Amino acid sequence: MPDEMSRPLIRERGEGGGSRRLEAPTYECGAPVIGILGTGDFSRSLAKRLVASGFHVVVGSRNPKRSAALFPEEAEVTSQLEAATQAQLVFIAVFPEHHSTLVALKPALAGKTLVDVSNSLQINQAGPSNAERLADLFPESDVVKGFNTISAWTLQMGPRDGCRQVFLCSNSQKAKSSVVELCHRMGFIPVDVGLLSSSLDVENLPLHLFPPWRVPVICTLSLFIFFYLYNFLRDVLHPFVTSGKSAFYKMPVETVNVTLPSVSLVMLALVYLPGLCAAFLQLCWGTKYRRFPERLDRWLTRRKQFGLCSFFCAVLHAIYSLCLPMRKSARFQLMNAAFKQVKAGVEDSWVDEEVWRMELYLSVGIMALGLLSLLAVASLPSVANTINWREFSFIQSTLGYCALLMATLHTLLFGWDRAFDPSQYRFLLPPTFLLVLILPLAVLLGRLALFLPCVAGRLKQIRRGWEKSRHIRFVLPDEDSHNGLDDVSNVP
Amino acid sequence: MPDEMSRPLIRERGEGGGSRRLEAPTYECGAPVIGILGTGDFSRSLAKRLVASGFHVVVGSRNPKRSAALFPEEAEVTSQLEAATQAQLVFIAVFPEHHSTLVALKPALAGKTLVDVSNSLQINQAGPSNAERLADLFPESDVVKGFNTISAWTLQMGPRDGCRQVFLCSNSQKAKSSVVELCHRMGFIPVDVGLLSSSLDVENLPLHLFPPWRVPVICTLSLFIFFYLYNFLRDVLHPFVTSGKSAFYKMPVETVNVTLPSVSLVMLALVYLPGLCAAFLQLCWGTKYRRFPERLDRWLTRRKQFGLCSFFCAVLHAIYSLCLPMRKSARFQLMNAAFKQVKAGVEDSWVDEEVWRMELYLSVGIMALGLLSLLAVASLPSVANTINWREFSFIQSTLGYCALLMATLHTLLFGWDRAFDPSQYRFLLPPTFLLVLILPLAVLLGRLALFLPCVAGRLKQIRRGWEKSRHIRFVLPDEDSHNGLDDVSNVP
Amino acid sequence: MPDEMSRPLIRERGEGGGSRRLEAPTYECGAPVIGILGTGDFSRSLAKRLVASGFHVVVGSRNPKRSAALFPEEAEVTSQLEAATQAQLVFIAVFPEHHSTLVALKPALAGKTLVDVSNSLQINQAGPSNAERLADLFPESDVVKGFNTISAWTLQMGPRDGCRQVFLCSNSQKAKSSVVELCHRMGFIPVDVGLLSSSLDVENLPLHLFPPWRVPVICTLSLFIFFYLYNFLRDVLHPFVTSGKSAFYKMPVETVNVTLPSVSLVMLALVYLPGLCAAFLQLCWGTKYRRFPERLDRWLTRRKQFGLCSFFCAVLHAIYSLCLPMRKSARFQLMNAAFKQVKAGVEDSWVDEEVWRMELYLSVGIMALGLLSLLAVASLPSVANTINWREFSFIQSTLGYCALLMATLHTLLFGWDRAFDPSQYRFLLPPTFLLVLILPLAVLLGRLALFLPCVAGRLKQIRRGWEKSRHIRFVLPDEDSHNGLDDVSNVP
Repeated sequence: MPDEMSRPLIRERGEGGGSRRLEAPTYECGAPVIGILGTGDFSRSLAKRLVASGFHVVVGSRNPKRSAALFPEEAEVTSQLEAATQAQLVFIAVFPEHHSTLVALKPALAGKTLVDVSNSLQINQAGPSNAERLADLFPESDVVKGFNTISAWTLQMGPRDGCRQVFLCSNSQKAKSSVVELCHRMGFIPVDVGLLSSSLDVENLPLHLFPPWRVPVICTLSLFIFFYLYNFLRDVLHPFVTSGKSAFYKMPVETVNVTLPSVSLVMLALVYLPGLCAAFLQLCWGTKYRRFPERLDRWLTRRKQFGLCSFFCAVLHAIYSLCLPMRKSARFQLMNAAFKQVKAGVEDSWVDEEVWRMELYLSVGIMALGLLSLLAVASLPSVANTINWREFSFIQSTLGYCALLMATLHTLLFGWDRAFDPSQYRFLLPPTFLLVLILPLAVLLGRLALFLPCVAGRLKQIRRGWEKSRHIRFVLPDEDSHNGLDDVSNVP
Repeated sequence: MPDEMSRPLIRERGEGGGSRRLEAPTYECGAPVIGILGTGDFSRSLAKRLVASGFHVVVGSRNPKRSAALFPEEAEVTSQLEAATQAQLVFIAVFPEHHSTLVALKPALAGKTLVDVSNSLQINQAGPSNAERLADLFPESDVVKGFNTISAWTLQMGPRDGCRQVFLCSNSQKAKSSVVELCHRMGFIPVDVGLLSSSLDVENLPLHLFPPWRVPVICTLSLFIFFYLYNFLRDVLHPFVTSGKSAFYKMPVETVNVTLPSVSLVMLALVYLPGLCAAFLQLCWGTKYRRFPERLDRWLTRRKQFGLCSFFCAVLHAIYSLCLPMRKSARFQLMNAAFKQVKAGVEDSWVDEEVWRMELYLSVGIMALGLLSLLAVASLPSVANTINWREFSFIQSTLGYCALLMATLHTLLFGWDRAFDPSQYRFLLPPTFLLVLILPLAVLLGRLALFLPCVAGRLKQIRRGWEKSRHIRFVLPDEDSHNGLDDVSNVP
Repeated sequence: MPDEMSRPLIRERGEGGGSRRLEAPTYECGAPVIGILGTGDFSRSLAKRLVASGFHVVVGSRNPKRSAALFPEEAEVTSQLEAATQAQLVFIAVFPEHHSTLVALKPALAGKTLVDVSNSLQINQAGPSNAERLADLFPESDVVKGFNTISAWTLQMGPRDGCRQVFLCSNSQKAKSSVVELCHRMGFIPVDVGLLSSSLDVENLPLHLFPPWRVPVICTLSLFIFFYLYNFLRDVLHPFVTSGKSAFYKMPVETVNVTLPSVSLVMLALVYLPGLCAAFLQLCWGTKYRRFPERLDRWLTRRKQFGLCSFFCAVLHAIYSLCLPMRKSARFQLMNAAFKQVKAGVEDSWVDEEVWRMELYLSVGIMALGLLSLLAVASLPSVANTINWREFSFIQSTLGYCALLMATLHTLLFGWDRAFDPSQYRFLLPPTFLLVLILPLAVLLGRLALFLPCVAGRLKQIRRGWEKSRHIRFVLPDEDSHNGLDDVSNVP
């Protein structure tokens, strides 16, 4: 079979096709016959995968002769009616707007399990879902929604590509069980998401475009624009306005390079701020049984994304910084400085303070970047899956605060004593690093406050279920399990 | 039990070994007794895992006394005949060339399930497979092929190391089901790949050495050699031949550093070329129901590998570039230039055009690298598994084209106006960047052409099933499901 | 339902809640009613997930009215007794120290399956485990230990976050089976770890803090301290003592930058040393059936961690090196050197040997880093899962030795002929690179020795089961399976 698309899957042997065919009638007796209505890309991939998983596949096409060439040899391509009649479990791989063309098959499909694999073209908030409409069309069949999150590509590449989850829902437990069984045999992990009323969500799943990333990315971009304009004012426009010096060449690299670490540090502080807020709210309320405001709750679930945005900016900052000495502008400045030194006859231009400042902030900055890299690697799904929650909380909380501390130190050392130098207040604007430091310093101080014995002890009590309003409860503490939501979502 | 190898697994308690033993007779009544024939590394790891999963394990050895010390205490080590008699399900962990030594056990194994875990030493294209030969030897037993893709190492480390797939095939559905069940209990994910005739492929699986990487890596290496020689001619040999200047010191770093981005950009263009070809073929044929040429099909499945090779070259290029100012040669050149400037009495050597060119191409280059990094991270299996196909196509297609655009801009800015400078045509060879730009510019223009409303509209029709040869089909469109193979494999 | 925490899960539709409720009585007939005792974070997340997976959930609370608001609408919140009575399978999500408060429910829980999800606060080596104590309290119920490794967070985020393993153990096979089934429906991967006597290990699992990393990290830190002090003596203290020059500014960057590659290279050699030791021990003993010393065995399982520590140091070294020309100190030195050159009237200060040395060691160093990056990426769990053991052994063994060779070359080229320069022996201490090279050179020579035909042949025989003590065994070789533990753990 000269079919390269099937390569990634377990291949059929060229010669073996025939012999397998001979065995076909027996197939795997007991295994249900699987029907597929529709002949698109998805149907073809599905048929290949089902055949490879040892099922007897019957494809129903409106034009069986033309379609047969597109399917694996082992699949039987026949009329829609024939396929619907033979199979106990039928995949409906037809555009949802053409579901109604299948109504003629209603008697043949009665009592059978229909798997609706369709997707919408855009997010459907109102309902009803495709699957619900299909169920209305075929009231005597059991409709299962599923496989829509799986692309035809995955169906083909699947077995070598880690685990894949298939979300299933149906009003019929029996029909769902048979599809669950099918998933297992195909190497997918079925996830039962309940009744058919969940199908709308399942259909919307593949249409979302990074919903958890929206706020963090917008936040990053806004901060970038703000700090870029601020730095542009101070570093480019100020010398031009005051002394007529053109420093516009700084815009593509230097200004960006001063902006990126500002964004990165503020974003990193924003990762740890919500945890602190949560802790202080709990201390203030004296209970953990009150819901956080919706915004805080959402923020708590977005910390990973905030952190990764911060890390991305930090890495870009590192690359931009490393590029600095490579630039022609740096070269020209250096040569002009050397010229001046020679003219002035200064044998040694060494300034110890400047040297120490730079060596220190470079070193601390690299350490901060190293720690952030560890955090980023630990947030890769496959790595995160192999660590337990104590390790996770050690990395994301302890190491994370160390990274924040290092990054703050890096900025403080970079600033050195320039906060007290009036010439740094161009246009009366304070140096950028002063603005940047406000939030991280606040977060670090807040964290320190939580280390005070009285505060730490009270917080621990609250997290074990104690409540201010009824002291008796600590003596007879409430049932609870300390399995880590505290540690993951609330402990700052 | 002083057995450090079992550490990663759930450990047996030193003292508990005895007490568990006392419970052994009841074990987990209902659980089948599992036999293992063979005492190699694989057998030992398998026995440990089975014991840890709560099974009663009987190991059949030709020399039980000597072997017993190597197995966990909970496993019973006995003669081969005894093990074959006790167990309902027997793992055959014996070199395939010694399968015949087991013939004496035929009566004891009749009616039982034999799991063949063996591998070949080299790829076997002709067949029959080890499992098929085993099935011929034991016609009265049900042979299941499986676990050969799992290393003894994985068996031991398994539970903490993510999910692992076990490919199973057998002619007996019942035997296969029992092994499927066993896999589930051991924490593996069984993948049913059909009848025993698939066992040859299953046996060959662990012997392949990166088959999808072969073409991309060869492609990268060839491009590297070509561009390296080309740059060597222009940058090293030309000054030596024409003016006797020795620039051979450029070979290890500078020439490599000019070669790497060339390879990277061409490879990146090669990622997007096949998608364009596919789109234009479909436009030309007026249908999506015709098979692409085999080469194009294979190319489409290798795009990820092409992209990662391109990314690897881009990262190396970044590191090489960042190393440039660190070199002694750069230092010497700088000092000599400073000397000349002082001698010539030029106070300011600043050249605005050169400064702008460099600042711009550095900045655009870093952005291209940043985008490529996002693409690379998104192609990690565990990350790719968590994103839906709309997100996947956004990253790989939209962001990917942005990265290509940025990289092309980086090269154009690097080239600046040097394409029109006759002195750049050394040995009549055009500057490298001109050669490099051909392909990416062609791809970008091709992509632009697909944005033209008339072309885009027609392509969309075709992808929904419309065909040039029968216009009526669009009015009554064919059944189909839009689950993304289009978007993943064909949309450029 | 304004519940943002449940967002990541399949969302309930605001309006749909009602309709689902109407169907609630039928729920999914056949599905067991699941009870949860306890109302903490874990209970709430568990209830949400169970509801989302289509189960009927009954939560038993000591104060149902107050708790009801915290649970999803679909879950029934009632008294503990009521919940215990209704459900067949009951999760005990109560602090283990309060298990005894549940004794009143004993009659209601008799004959039912209790799932103990509790964790200890600290590692418990002695036993009995919480689950065993629970089983003692409820002798008429079947206790299953499990879900304690899953955080409340995972329960909520689960379906989109890859696969998660749930370790289960119980003395009742029937009870365990029902929990296994439950896991499957919730999208988790159950791993059967045997009888309830394993529960202590299961409870300790989430309390470990990177046990396999302890030795490698300690090793890295010790080496770092040693080499840092050594370099400090030679590079900072020596010039100060002998000539009064203050080079203390080198401490944050330069000394660290000389220390990191030393640590990295030694750690990389330590990755390949145990494999060599194992091979030589096997050659020496003439058999593979003898256990390695415990330390060697443990070392063999820690090689990945050693390698990643080495890689981390190598990356930091690269960043530090790239920072060198950016520093003020480098700038001052350069300008002073230019001043001297001008004063001395030297037109060309170029020294060919120094240039070549640097170009070569930079180039080789970058290649070593590139290879190490490939090794690091290949050791990510999700990548490692997609490659077979031949590919794994190619990367970790062949590419790994190439990286070691490159890194050794990098160091040799860096050293150049300075080993023979007496002025380098400050305080009579040899240059650092000499110390560093001992181990990698020994490992490379040892590996070369194993390539000698006679040695390689004998080793291969031994790994196929041959033993020195009984030559006859090779003629009639022992049963064995070559599934890769050799290749992964023993082949150097």
